[in-house]
Amino acid sequence: MKKVLVVGANGQIGKRLVTLIQKSSHLEAKAMIRNREQATFFKNLGVQTVVADLEEGVDTFVKAVADVDAIVFTAGSGGHTGKDKTIMVDLDGAVKTMEAAKSANIRRFVLISSFDTTRESILDANSSFAPYVAVKHYADEWLKGTDLDYTIIHPGVLTNDEGTGQVNVGSKVERGEVPREDIARVILASLENDKTIGKEFQVVGGTKSVKDAVDSV
Amino acid sequence: MKKVLVVGANGQIGKRLVTLIQKSSHLEAKAMIRNREQATFFKNLGVQTVVADLEEGVDTFVKAVADVDAIVFTAGSGGHTGKDKTIMVDLDGAVKTMEAAKSANIRRFVLISSFDTTRESILDANSSFAPYVAVKHYADEWLKGTDLDYTIIHPGVLTNDEGTGQVNVGSKVERGEVPREDIARVILASLENDKTIGKEFQVVGGTKSVKDAVDSV
Repeated sequence: MKKVLVVGANGQIGKRLVTLIQKSSHLEAKAMIRNREQATFFKNLGVQTVVADLEEGVDTFVKAVADVDAIVFTAGSGGHTGKDKTIMVDLDGAVKTMEAAKSANIRRFVLISSFDTTRESILDANSSFAPYVAVKHYADEWLKGTDLDYTIIHPGVLTNDEGTGQVNVGSKVERGEVPREDIARVILASLENDKTIGKEFQVVGGTKSVKDAVDSV
Repeated sequence: MKKVLVVGANGQIGKRLVTLIQKSSHLEAKAMIRNREQATFFKNLGVQTVVADLEEGVDTFVKAVADVDAIVFTAGSGGHTGKDKTIMVDLDGAVKTMEAAKSANIRRFVLISSFDTTRESILDANSSFAPYVAVKHYADEWLKGTDLDYTIIHPGVLTNDEGTGQVNVGSKVERGEVPREDIARVILASLENDKTIGKEFQVVGGTKSVKDAVDSV
């Protein structure tokens, strides 16, 4: 039974992902949460929790990742919080988690990014959104510069609609909505499919089953 | 005559550095400025200028660096501007300049950082300053990850006092004041001393001549 640390487990994708992992037959989840008050949801699912703040030192993370086989980083400040948090969570938090992974020799790392983090998209974004895109760009580039077995997932416009299990994926797809539940399914399918290692792809709602879509990247 | 592009030429260190370079016998300056209104100071010194905004695309920079032999990046949003600018100037502006340097095959790159940008200093900083330190940390780390002939200079508390020409340098010196004029001298001395390639060091006011101090790193 492989254990997956979900960083940002209490987030909207995180909770759905932990739930799916627990239902799967050969993976189990470990939820990294910011404080004890967030633990109830996970305890009710029978999921191990570890309390760690992304603004703490790398040592904290090394302990959190110690007994896992893979890491999913789905913490995010969102595009509308202060840029302070964007830097400290989306960039520094992500990089510290990568450093902890390397230090604990956990090779598999799945990063949930934003839809378009290319150099061009930083230029195209308006001045209030560009810094957010830039930070996501650098977190992605940092991961690609490591020798971790990474997958970077770029979701479209996230909704809380019920998942359909049908998506489109690709290196450059048309921007569109995608239910968070389907992103959670894509993450799970990526963890289960080593063809996604060293890849990054966008995901929107579509017409292919998650399994087939992920297998096509 | 080697030509040095000063990015952030209109800044307080930038102006002093351009002036010093013009006085030196074997270097000449090219001032990168944000708009034409900033050109007068440099024209009066007989210095070539190029107008480019750090928030523009890499192409702009490639043109700016085309005819130079070295680049000094001393642009900075300062610790007290919005974090938007910190991301866009101190991180994205710096990395785009590095990318332009690589693309134009300019190997020599001197980056003016802040006093302490270690992982520990991010943790030690208070919550409003930590994001600034983190951004400087990542700009420094990014440069170290390139194969450019870099030097990273970490100045102490900057003052507008007249320079003394006497400094202390080292990988870990006690925090103290240092005149901007002396930092400009240290930059010039670093450009003239290849022993500084691949090095980073802190600089505060001290007791050694700039030349000897820089030669000791």
